Amino acid sequence: MVKIAIDAMGGDFGPEPIVNGCIKALKKKRFTPILVGNKSEILPLLPKRYRDKILIVESQDIIAMSDAATDAVKRKESSIYKAVDLVRDGQADGVVSAGHSGATMTLATLRLGRLQGVSRPALVTLMPTKTGRRSVLLDVGANVDSKPEHLAEFAVMGGCYAEDVLGIAEPSIGLLANGEEDSKGNEVTKAAFKILEGYKGFKGNVEGGDIFNGSCDVITCDGFVGNLVLKTSEGVASTISQLIKDYIKKSPIRITGALLMRKVFKLLKKEIDYAEIGGAPLIGIKGCAIVSHGKSNARAIENAIYQAIDYVDTGVNRHIIARLQELKQKDI
Amino acid sequence: MVKIAIDAMGGDFGPEPIVNGCIKALKKKRFTPILVGNKSEILPLLPKRYRDKILIVESQDIIAMSDAATDAVKRKESSIYKAVDLVRDGQADGVVSAGHSGATMTLATLRLGRLQGVSRPALVTLMPTKTGRRSVLLDVGANVDSKPEHLAEFAVMGGCYAEDVLGIAEPSIGLLANGEEDSKGNEVTKAAFKILEGYKGFKGNVEGGDIFNGSCDVITCDGFVGNLVLKTSEGVASTISQLIKDYIKKSPIRITGALLMRKVFKLLKKEIDYAEIGGAPLIGIKGCAIVSHGKSNARAIENAIYQAIDYVDTGVNRHIIARLQELKQKDI
Repeated sequence: MVKIAIDAMGGDFGPEPIVNGCIKALKKKRFTPILVGNKSEILPLLPKRYRDKILIVESQDIIAMSDAATDAVKRKESSIYKAVDLVRDGQADGVVSAGHSGATMTLATLRLGRLQGVSRPALVTLMPTKTGRRSVLLDVGANVDSKPEHLAEFAVMGGCYAEDVLGIAEPSIGLLANGEEDSKGNEVTKAAFKILEGYKGFKGNVEGGDIFNGSCDVITCDGFVGNLVLKTSEGVASTISQLIKDYIKKSPIRITGALLMRKVFKLLKKEIDYAEIGGAPLIGIKGCAIVSHGKSNARAIENAIYQAIDYVDTGVNRHIIARLQELKQKDI
Repeated sequence: MVKIAIDAMGGDFGPEPIVNGCIKALKKKRFTPILVGNKSEILPLLPKRYRDKILIVESQDIIAMSDAATDAVKRKESSIYKAVDLVRDGQADGVVSAGHSGATMTLATLRLGRLQGVSRPALVTLMPTKTGRRSVLLDVGANVDSKPEHLAEFAVMGGCYAEDVLGIAEPSIGLLANGEEDSKGNEVTKAAFKILEGYKGFKGNVEGGDIFNGSCDVITCDGFVGNLVLKTSEGVASTISQLIKDYIKKSPIRITGALLMRKVFKLLKKEIDYAEIGGAPLIGIKGCAIVSHGKSNARAIENAIYQAIDYVDTGVNRHIIARLQELKQKDI
């Protein structure tokens, strides 16, 4: 049975949503959860019938959001350090954390190590599209100032993820740029284009809008750019929803209309709510680490756990090693 | 009276929306339009009573969207070349074009020249925010691989635009990055941060979401990044609107609700429709050039003309020269 280590302490709202998310997941899937954190805080949140289904590993220290990510390697008693080390020691197959994302990424990279052929692990996010199918965008924040070969590696890793975890046969892969033409791009993307040219599924440059129209399954970019794309998307969605609310409030007719359309807004929320995704896998490390939002609710943690289980079950890491070799042989 | 040269031929839909946009603008504002293009195509579109209010400058050549921007400087008979040269020769104060945007930017930069202190002109766009006030984002596509000093110049130019053209007193200026903390950013933005530190209105790093929440008036970024942010925003807005439509169609109750909410969607469309903005000013050149979308309708052209008039009227260019001197003196 897959064993998932879960940092119970790092989230913005303490252990409650994390423990609840874990219980929700246990109701639907068979796996062994290992909660890492303060036992005296976790136990009161656990209904008796779950106490023998969930392991608890004691940890007294918590890395706060305001701490420096670089300090994480020294804080060996912290919940995230101990959770990552459970994977390192083979006691868990994957780790989920809603704590300090920089600390999680640093520890997962340094304590678990990179897969053979991977220069830099990348953070993966799944974006909603018009077709209902999600597109894979990476890197959304693990790296800045990526080099061309990094973007090419992200493309390959994203392709394996789309194929194995999302079940997309022969995923198309795009390079995020400021125009579709081959001539577009900055220095780094133009050089990445040359590395990826001819690689299976590579369709060339894609634009910002292509992330959401379903025309491309996997989109590779630098983490500075990916972070901006992600935050911009969230900002636009939140602004549109705010404007709609403001306009509705101004007239009783509109309020009636909105009530009749309630289900529409519910479906939309489900489609664009990050809690439905759960978290962002850090791809390229030995093992599996899912980086969840600090503000994760129980539903987000539940989905992050499913992501970790799927990631481990599909064996995407072996696939990545093989494909990166193909990419490198392409150029010889 | 302000004289605006308008490329009548370059848009995707030929001269019709451009001539109509020009007539719409004439009904509301006093200015002298100079349409540049094929007289035999333009004249039949002009009602008799407008024929003495609109000048036409004959041009036989059109730069197609598929042509290379670099060829533009050789195509001296093209409508956009002639329209830009009307500004160069002092016969017009500003130029509006819905044609090949690369050609427009190249010609405006090379034929009109850069303002004193400007290394690279930048494309400005106005983004909708939750507060109803628009934020100024630049560069959205004139440059890639911008250097730190370029980002700083964009910030200064955007500040002048916000103050003079939008009438925002003491605009706040942010540097687009992957996090708000001073330590965030890539190599280029970190160096730009140091140049801008202490400059009037500079509030440090801002994130993608800050473009739309009204917390910052002016946001500076590289054109590769700005283009992605812009296309991403359009993609998210269009995806949300598509999803809403799809969900509505599935039930008569929802359709009734949507009818009652019609006005809400109309207001929303007005807020996020680029036609309401009109076009993107290329800032930093001697003179004024508004780059409109190839798919501009008459309403977009009308608004682009207002933008050009306001740009010229406010004398923002003199302000830019003075402020760039202040920025440079700051570091001495």
